Amino acid sequence: MIGPLEALIAALKKLPGVGDKTATRYGFSILNADPAEVRELVAAIRDVKAKLKLCSTCFHLTEEDPCGICADPRRDSTRVCVVETPLDLLAVEKGGAFRGVYHVLHGVLSPLDAIGPEDVRLAELLDRVRDQGVKEVIIALNPTVEGEATASFIRDQLKDQDLVVSRIAYGIPVGGSLEYADPLTLSRALENRVKL
Amino acid sequence: MIGPLEALIAALKKLPGVGDKTATRYGFSILNADPAEVRELVAAIRDVKAKLKLCSTCFHLTEEDPCGICADPRRDSTRVCVVETPLDLLAVEKGGAFRGVYHVLHGVLSPLDAIGPEDVRLAELLDRVRDQGVKEVIIALNPTVEGEATASFIRDQLKDQDLVVSRIAYGIPVGGSLEYADPLTLSRALENRVKL
Repeated sequence: MIGPLEALIAALKKLPGVGDKTATRYGFSILNADPAEVRELVAAIRDVKAKLKLCSTCFHLTEEDPCGICADPRRDSTRVCVVETPLDLLAVEKGGAFRGVYHVLHGVLSPLDAIGPEDVRLAELLDRVRDQGVKEVIIALNPTVEGEATASFIRDQLKDQDLVVSRIAYGIPVGGSLEYADPLTLSRALENRVKL
Repeated sequence: MIGPLEALIAALKKLPGVGDKTATRYGFSILNADPAEVRELVAAIRDVKAKLKLCSTCFHLTEEDPCGICADPRRDSTRVCVVETPLDLLAVEKGGAFRGVYHVLHGVLSPLDAIGPEDVRLAELLDRVRDQGVKEVIIALNPTVEGEATASFIRDQLKDQDLVVSRIAYGIPVGGSLEYADPLTLSRALENRVKL
Protein backbone atom coordinates (compact mmCIF):
# COMPACT_ATOMS: atom_id res chain seq x y z
CA MET A 1 0.00 0.00 0.00
CA ILE A 2 2.81 2.40 0.83
CA GLY A 3 5.49 0.75 -1.24
CA PRO A 4 8.48 3.07 -0.79
CA LEU A 5 8.09 2.98 2.99
CA GLU A 6 7.83 -0.79 2.96
CA ALA A 7 10.94 -1.00 0.78
CA LEU A 8 12.82 1.22 3.20
CA ILE A 9 11.67 -0.84 6.18
CA ALA A 10 12.81 -4.02 4.41
CA ALA A 11 16.22 -2.44 3.73
CA LEU A 12 16.57 -1.23 7.33
CA LYS A 13 15.78 -4.70 8.64
CA LYS A 14 19.14 -5.84 7.28
CA LEU A 15 20.90 -3.81 9.97
CA PRO A 16 22.08 -6.01 12.85
CA GLY A 17 19.47 -6.66 15.53
CA VAL A 18 16.76 -4.65 13.73
CA GLY A 19 13.35 -6.32 13.48
CA ASP A 20 10.02 -5.23 12.08
CA LYS A 21 9.11 -2.74 14.78
CA THR A 22 12.47 -1.02 15.03
CA ALA A 23 12.77 -0.82 11.23
CA THR A 24 9.29 0.71 11.05
CA ARG A 25 10.23 3.27 13.67
CA TYR A 26 13.41 4.15 11.78
CA GLY A 27 11.51 4.27 8.49
CA PHE A 28 8.97 6.78 9.79
CA SER A 29 11.71 8.80 11.43
CA ILE A 30 13.52 9.06 8.07
CA LEU A 31 10.25 9.88 6.33
CA ASN A 32 9.58 12.73 8.75
CA ALA A 33 13.17 13.95 8.98
CA ASP A 34 14.44 17.20 7.62
CA PRO A 35 15.45 16.77 3.91
CA ALA A 36 18.94 18.12 4.69
CA GLU A 37 19.41 15.50 7.40
CA VAL A 38 18.33 12.76 5.01
CA ARG A 39 20.74 14.01 2.33
CA GLU A 40 23.49 13.90 4.95
CA LEU A 41 22.62 10.32 5.86
CA VAL A 42 22.61 9.24 2.20
CA ALA A 43 25.95 10.97 1.57
CA ALA A 44 27.46 9.40 4.69
CA ILE A 45 26.36 5.91 3.63
CA ARG A 46 27.86 6.42 0.18
CA ASP A 47 31.10 7.92 1.48
CA VAL A 48 31.71 5.10 3.90
CA LYS A 49 31.61 2.63 1.01
CA ALA A 50 33.48 4.82 -1.46
CA LYS A 51 36.20 6.48 0.61
CA LEU A 52 37.33 3.94 3.17
CA LYS A 53 40.00 1.36 2.46
CA LEU A 54 42.38 -0.72 4.58
CA CYS A 55 45.80 0.55 5.62
CA SER A 56 48.35 -1.63 3.81
CA THR A 57 50.48 -1.82 6.97
CA CYS A 58 48.06 -2.43 9.85
CA PHE A 59 44.77 -3.10 7.95
CA HIS A 60 42.87 -0.51 9.93
CA LEU A 61 40.15 1.40 8.06
CA THR A 62 41.47 4.61 6.62
CA GLU A 63 41.01 7.24 3.92
CA GLU A 64 44.78 7.60 3.41
CA ASP A 65 47.32 4.79 3.12
CA PRO A 66 49.20 4.42 5.45
CA CYS A 67 46.66 5.28 8.13
CA GLY A 68 47.04 8.13 10.60
CA ILE A 69 48.39 5.85 13.32
CA CYS A 70 51.00 4.12 11.14
CA ALA A 71 52.06 7.49 9.67
CA ASP A 72 52.41 9.18 13.07
CA PRO A 73 56.14 9.46 13.91
CA ARG A 74 55.32 9.83 17.63
CA ARG A 75 53.90 6.29 17.79
CA ASP A 76 56.26 3.53 18.84
CA SER A 77 56.36 1.14 15.86
CA THR A 78 58.34 -1.48 17.81
CA ARG A 79 55.23 -2.41 19.79
CA VAL A 80 52.35 -3.91 17.79
CA CYS A 81 48.93 -4.45 19.37
CA VAL A 82 46.97 -7.21 17.60
CA VAL A 83 43.17 -6.77 17.51
CA GLU A 84 40.35 -8.61 15.79
CA THR A 85 38.40 -5.68 14.30
CA PRO A 86 38.73 -1.94 13.65
CA LEU A 87 36.10 -1.52 16.38
CA ASP A 88 38.43 -3.19 18.89
CA LEU A 89 41.23 -0.90 17.70
CA LEU A 90 39.04 2.12 18.37
CA ALA A 91 38.21 0.76 21.83
CA VAL A 92 41.90 0.40 22.74
CA GLU A 93 42.64 3.80 21.20
CA LYS A 94 39.88 5.40 23.27
CA GLY A 95 41.69 4.22 26.40
CA GLY A 96 44.54 6.50 25.31
CA ALA A 97 47.19 4.50 27.18
CA PHE A 98 48.73 2.73 24.18
CA ARG A 99 51.28 4.66 22.14
CA GLY A 100 52.40 1.83 19.85
CA VAL A 101 50.88 0.72 16.56
CA TYR A 102 48.22 -1.85 15.67
CA HIS A 103 47.55 -4.85 13.49
CA VAL A 104 43.92 -5.64 12.64
CA LEU A 105 43.39 -9.34 11.88
CA HIS A 106 39.81 -8.92 10.57
CA GLY A 107 38.81 -12.16 12.26
CA VAL A 108 40.14 -14.89 14.51
CA LEU A 109 40.90 -18.55 13.88
CA SER A 110 37.74 -20.62 14.10
CA PRO A 111 38.01 -24.20 12.79
CA LEU A 112 34.25 -24.71 13.35
CA ASP A 113 33.50 -21.85 10.95
CA ALA A 114 36.29 -23.02 8.62
CA ILE A 115 38.30 -19.86 9.28
CA GLY A 116 41.99 -20.73 9.08
CA PRO A 117 45.16 -18.62 9.21
CA GLU A 118 44.85 -17.75 5.52
CA ASP A 119 41.39 -16.19 6.04
CA VAL A 120 42.63 -13.51 8.42
CA ARG A 121 45.60 -11.10 8.24
CA LEU A 122 47.93 -13.46 10.13
CA ALA A 123 50.57 -13.95 7.41
CA GLU A 124 50.76 -10.15 7.10
CA LEU A 125 51.27 -9.88 10.86
CA LEU A 126 54.04 -12.48 10.90
CA ASP A 127 55.77 -10.93 7.87
CA ARG A 128 55.51 -7.54 9.51
CA VAL A 129 57.00 -8.42 12.87
CA ARG A 130 59.73 -10.75 11.59
CA ASP A 131 63.04 -8.97 11.24
CA GLN A 132 61.44 -5.52 11.34
CA GLY A 133 62.74 -4.50 14.74
CA VAL A 134 59.44 -5.23 16.51
CA LYS A 135 60.15 -5.74 20.21
CA GLU A 136 56.74 -6.66 21.52
CA VAL A 137 53.53 -8.11 20.10
CA ILE A 138 50.63 -7.37 22.46
CA ILE A 139 47.63 -9.59 21.82
CA ALA A 140 44.34 -7.83 22.55
CA LEU A 141 41.87 -10.42 21.27
CA ASN A 142 38.57 -11.25 22.94
CA PRO A 143 38.83 -13.87 25.71
CA THR A 144 36.93 -16.52 23.73
CA VAL A 145 38.04 -19.97 22.62
CA GLU A 146 38.79 -18.57 19.16
CA GLY A 147 40.66 -15.59 20.57
CA GLU A 148 42.78 -17.85 22.78
CA ALA A 149 43.49 -20.23 19.90
CA THR A 150 44.59 -17.32 17.72
CA ALA A 151 46.81 -16.01 20.51
CA SER A 152 48.44 -19.45 20.88
CA PHE A 153 48.97 -19.65 17.13
CA ILE A 154 50.69 -16.26 17.04
CA ARG A 155 52.85 -17.13 20.05
CA ASP A 156 53.90 -20.45 18.44
CA GLN A 157 54.72 -18.82 15.12
CA LEU A 158 56.86 -16.17 16.78
CA LYS A 159 58.57 -18.31 19.40
CA ASP A 160 61.92 -18.33 17.55
CA GLN A 161 61.92 -14.57 17.16
CA ASP A 162 63.74 -12.22 19.47
CA LEU A 163 60.61 -10.45 20.71
CA VAL A 164 58.09 -10.57 23.54
CA VAL A 165 54.56 -11.83 22.90
CA SER A 166 52.18 -10.62 25.60
CA ARG A 167 48.44 -10.63 26.15
CA ILE A 168 46.24 -7.96 27.79
CA ALA A 169 45.20 -8.85 31.34
CA TYR A 170 41.95 -10.63 32.15
CA GLY A 171 40.33 -9.69 35.44
CA ILE A 172 37.60 -7.76 37.20
CA PRO A 173 36.57 -4.65 35.23
CA VAL A 174 37.44 -1.40 36.95
CA GLY A 175 34.27 -0.19 38.67
CA GLY A 176 32.85 -3.72 38.48
CA SER A 177 31.69 -5.71 41.43
CA LEU A 178 33.04 -9.08 42.62
CA GLU A 179 29.48 -10.09 43.39
CA TYR A 180 28.48 -9.95 39.72
CA ALA A 181 31.70 -11.25 38.17
CA ASP A 182 31.41 -14.66 36.53
CA PRO A 183 33.44 -17.53 38.08
CA LEU A 184 35.85 -17.79 35.13
CA THR A 185 36.72 -14.10 35.26
CA LEU A 186 37.20 -14.36 39.01
CA SER A 187 39.50 -17.37 38.76
CA ARG A 188 41.50 -15.59 35.99
CA ALA A 189 41.69 -12.49 38.20
CA LEU A 190 43.02 -14.58 41.11
CA GLU A 191 45.48 -16.42 38.90
CA ASN A 192 46.84 -13.16 37.49
CA ARG A 193 47.03 -11.37 40.83
CA VAL A 194 49.77 -8.76 41.15
CA LYS A 195 51.92 -8.01 44.17
CA LEU A 196 51.21 -4.74 45.94
CA MET B 1 40.80 9.25 12.15
CA ILE B 2 38.26 7.40 10.03
CA GLY B 3 36.16 10.39 9.07
CA PRO B 4 33.54 8.88 6.72
CA LEU B 5 32.67 6.21 9.28
CA GLU B 6 32.39 8.78 12.04
CA ALA B 7 30.16 10.93 9.83
CA LEU B 8 27.93 7.92 9.15
CA ILE B 9 27.75 7.05 12.85
CA ALA B 10 26.81 10.66 13.64
CA ALA B 11 24.05 10.54 11.00
CA LEU B 12 22.73 7.19 12.25
CA LYS B 13 22.58 8.53 15.82
CA LYS B 14 19.70 10.75 14.69
CA LEU B 15 17.48 7.69 14.35
CA PRO B 16 15.13 7.31 17.33
CA GLY B 17 16.62 5.47 20.30
CA VAL B 18 20.01 4.99 18.62
CA GLY B 19 23.05 5.82 20.75
CA ASP B 20 26.76 5.61 20.17
CA LYS B 21 27.11 1.84 20.38
CA THR B 22 24.13 0.97 18.21
CA ALA B 23 25.10 3.58 15.61
CA THR B 24 28.63 2.17 15.54
CA ARG B 25 27.29 -1.34 15.03
CA TYR B 26 25.02 -0.14 12.20
CA GLY B 27 27.89 1.87 10.68
CA PHE B 28 30.19 -1.13 10.53
CA SER B 29 27.40 -3.30 9.21
CA ILE B 30 26.81 -0.83 6.36
CA LEU B 31 30.56 -0.61 5.74
CA ASN B 32 30.81 -4.38 5.43
CA ALA B 33 27.55 -4.88 3.56
CA ASP B 34 27.25 -5.97 -0.02
CA PRO B 35 27.44 -2.88 -2.34
CA ALA B 36 24.11 -3.88 -3.96
CA GLU B 37 22.42 -3.93 -0.55
CA VAL B 38 23.81 -0.51 0.27
CA ARG B 39 22.61 0.88 -3.07
CA GLU B 40 19.17 -0.52 -2.25
CA LEU B 41 19.18 1.17 1.16
CA VAL B 42 20.22 4.51 -0.34
CA ALA B 43 17.56 4.24 -3.06
CA ALA B 44 14.91 3.32 -0.46
CA ILE B 45 15.78 6.32 1.71
CA ARG B 46 15.56 8.65 -1.29
CA ASP B 47 12.33 7.14 -2.57
CA VAL B 48 10.57 7.44 0.73
CA LYS B 49 11.25 11.18 0.73
CA ALA B 50 10.60 11.70 -2.97
CA LYS B 51 7.64 9.48 -3.74
CA LEU B 52 5.39 9.55 -0.71
CA LYS B 53 2.74 12.21 -0.14
CA LEU B 54 -0.45 12.47 1.89
CA CYS B 55 -3.81 11.33 0.54
CA SER B 56 -5.96 14.46 0.17
CA THR B 57 -8.98 12.63 1.59
CA CYS B 58 -7.69 10.66 4.58
CA PHE B 59 -4.10 12.01 4.93
CA HIS B 60 -2.57 8.55 4.92
CA LEU B 61 0.84 8.21 3.27
CA THR B 62 0.51 7.22 -0.36
CA GLU B 63 2.17 7.28 -3.74
CA GLU B 64 -1.16 7.91 -5.55
CA ASP B 65 -3.85 10.40 -4.52
CA PRO B 66 -6.41 9.26 -3.41
CA CYS B 67 -4.75 6.40 -1.54
CA GLY B 68 -5.48 2.73 -2.16
CA ILE B 69 -7.94 2.54 0.73
CA CYS B 70 -9.95 5.65 -0.22
CA ALA B 71 -9.99 4.53 -3.87
CA ASP B 72 -11.16 0.99 -3.07
CA PRO B 73 -14.89 0.70 -3.93
CA ARG B 74 -15.24 -2.32 -1.63
CA ARG B 75 -14.45 -0.22 1.44
CA ASP B 76 -17.39 1.27 3.34
CA SER B 77 -16.88 5.03 3.16
CA THR B 78 -19.71 5.71 5.61
CA ARG B 79 -17.54 4.50 8.50
CA VAL B 80 -14.44 6.56 9.25
CA CYS B 81 -11.80 5.34 11.69
CA VAL B 82 -9.79 8.22 13.20
CA VAL B 83 -6.15 7.47 14.03
CA GLU B 84 -3.21 9.57 15.15
CA THR B 85 -0.49 8.36 12.76
CA PRO B 86 -0.07 6.30 9.58
CA LEU B 87 1.58 3.70 11.82
CA ASP B 88 -1.64 3.38 13.82
CA LEU B 89 -3.56 3.04 10.56
CA LEU B 90 -1.29 0.19 9.51
CA ALA B 91 -1.78 -1.48 12.93
CA VAL B 92 -5.59 -1.37 12.56
CA GLU B 93 -5.32 -2.48 8.94
CA LYS B 94 -3.16 -5.45 9.95
CA GLY B 95 -6.00 -6.64 12.18
CA GLY B 96 -8.02 -7.03 8.97
CA ALA B 97 -11.39 -6.62 10.72
CA PHE B 98 -12.12 -3.06 9.63
CA ARG B 99 -13.60 -2.55 6.17
CA GLY B 100 -14.32 1.17 6.41
CA VAL B 101 -12.02 4.10 5.63
CA TYR B 102 -9.60 6.12 7.77
CA HIS B 103 -8.70 9.63 8.76
CA VAL B 104 -5.15 10.28 9.95
CA LEU B 105 -4.92 13.29 12.28
CA HIS B 106 -1.09 13.43 12.30
CA GLY B 107 -1.13 14.29 15.98
CA VAL B 108 -3.47 14.75 18.92
CA LEU B 109 -4.48 17.81 20.92
CA SER B 110 -1.88 18.62 23.52
CA PRO B 111 -2.19 22.04 25.18
CA LEU B 112 1.08 21.48 27.10
CA ASP B 113 2.95 21.13 23.79
CA ALA B 114 0.90 23.98 22.29
CA ILE B 115 -0.76 21.62 19.79
CA GLY B 116 -4.27 22.90 19.13
CA PRO B 117 -7.03 21.80 16.71
CA GLU B 118 -5.44 23.79 13.87
CA ASP B 119 -2.15 21.87 14.18
CA VAL B 120 -3.68 18.51 13.35
CA ARG B 121 -6.08 17.40 10.58
CA LEU B 122 -9.21 17.99 12.70
CA ALA B 123 -10.91 20.62 10.51
CA GLU B 124 -10.46 18.28 7.54
CA LEU B 125 -12.08 15.47 9.53
CA LEU B 126 -15.06 17.59 10.53
CA ASP B 127 -15.51 18.93 6.98
CA ARG B 128 -15.31 15.42 5.67
CA VAL B 129 -17.89 13.82 7.93
CA ARG B 130 -20.39 16.72 7.94
CA ASP B 131 -23.14 16.19 5.40
CA GLN B 132 -21.21 13.54 3.48
CA GLY B 133 -23.34 10.58 4.47
CA VAL B 134 -20.89 9.37 7.13
CA LYS B 135 -22.77 7.17 9.59
CA GLU B 136 -20.10 6.39 12.14
CA VAL B 137 -16.85 7.95 13.32
CA ILE B 138 -14.76 5.36 15.18
CA ILE B 139 -12.06 6.92 17.31
CA ALA B 140 -8.96 4.74 17.54
CA LEU B 141 -6.61 7.10 19.39
CA ASN B 142 -4.15 6.00 22.06
CA PRO B 143 -5.63 5.84 25.58
CA THR B 144 -3.58 8.80 26.84
CA VAL B 145 -4.77 12.12 28.29
CA GLU B 146 -4.18 13.75 24.88
CA GLY B 147 -5.97 10.96 23.03
CA GLU B 148 -8.96 11.19 25.34
CA ALA B 149 -9.06 14.99 25.04
CA THR B 150 -8.98 14.73 21.25
CA ALA B 151 -11.77 12.13 21.34
CA SER B 152 -13.91 14.44 23.52
CA PHE B 153 -13.25 17.35 21.17
CA ILE B 154 -14.37 15.34 18.15
CA ARG B 155 -17.46 14.08 19.94
CA ASP B 156 -18.41 17.64 20.98
CA GLN B 157 -17.91 19.04 17.50
CA LEU B 158 -20.07 16.33 15.94
CA LYS B 159 -22.82 16.14 18.57
CA ASP B 160 -25.37 17.94 16.37
CA GLN B 161 -24.71 15.64 13.44
CA ASP B 162 -26.82 12.62 12.61
CA LEU B 163 -24.01 10.09 13.13
CA VAL B 164 -22.57 7.80 15.76
CA VAL B 165 -19.23 8.63 17.39
CA SER B 166 -17.68 5.54 18.96
CA ARG B 167 -14.34 4.63 20.48
CA ILE B 168 -12.43 1.33 20.29
CA ALA B 169 -12.68 -0.76 23.47
CA TYR B 170 -10.14 -0.59 26.26
CA GLY B 171 -9.50 -3.82 28.13
CA ILE B 172 -7.25 -6.78 28.71
CA PRO B 173 -5.22 -7.63 25.59
CA VAL B 174 -6.13 -10.98 24.05
CA GLY B 175 -3.54 -13.46 25.25
CA GLY B 176 -2.63 -11.11 28.11
CA SER B 177 -2.73 -12.03 31.75
CA LEU B 178 -4.83 -10.37 34.46
CA GLU B 179 -1.88 -10.72 36.78
CA TYR B 180 0.24 -8.34 34.68
CA ALA B 181 -2.49 -5.91 33.64
CA ASP B 182 -2.18 -2.43 35.16
CA PRO B 183 -4.97 -1.30 37.55
CA LEU B 184 -6.35 1.31 35.15
CA THR B 185 -6.69 -1.18 32.31
CA LEU B 186 -8.36 -3.63 34.67
CA SER B 187 -10.86 -1.08 35.94
CA ARG B 188 -11.64 -0.04 32.33
CA ALA B 189 -12.07 -3.69 31.42
CA LEU B 190 -14.52 -4.18 34.29
CA GLU B 191 -16.41 -0.99 33.46
CA ASN B 192 -16.81 -2.03 29.82
CA ARG B 193 -17.75 -5.62 30.57
CA VAL B 194 -20.08 -7.26 28.03
CA LYS B 195 -22.95 -9.63 28.69
CA LEU B 196 -22.36 -13.25 27.67
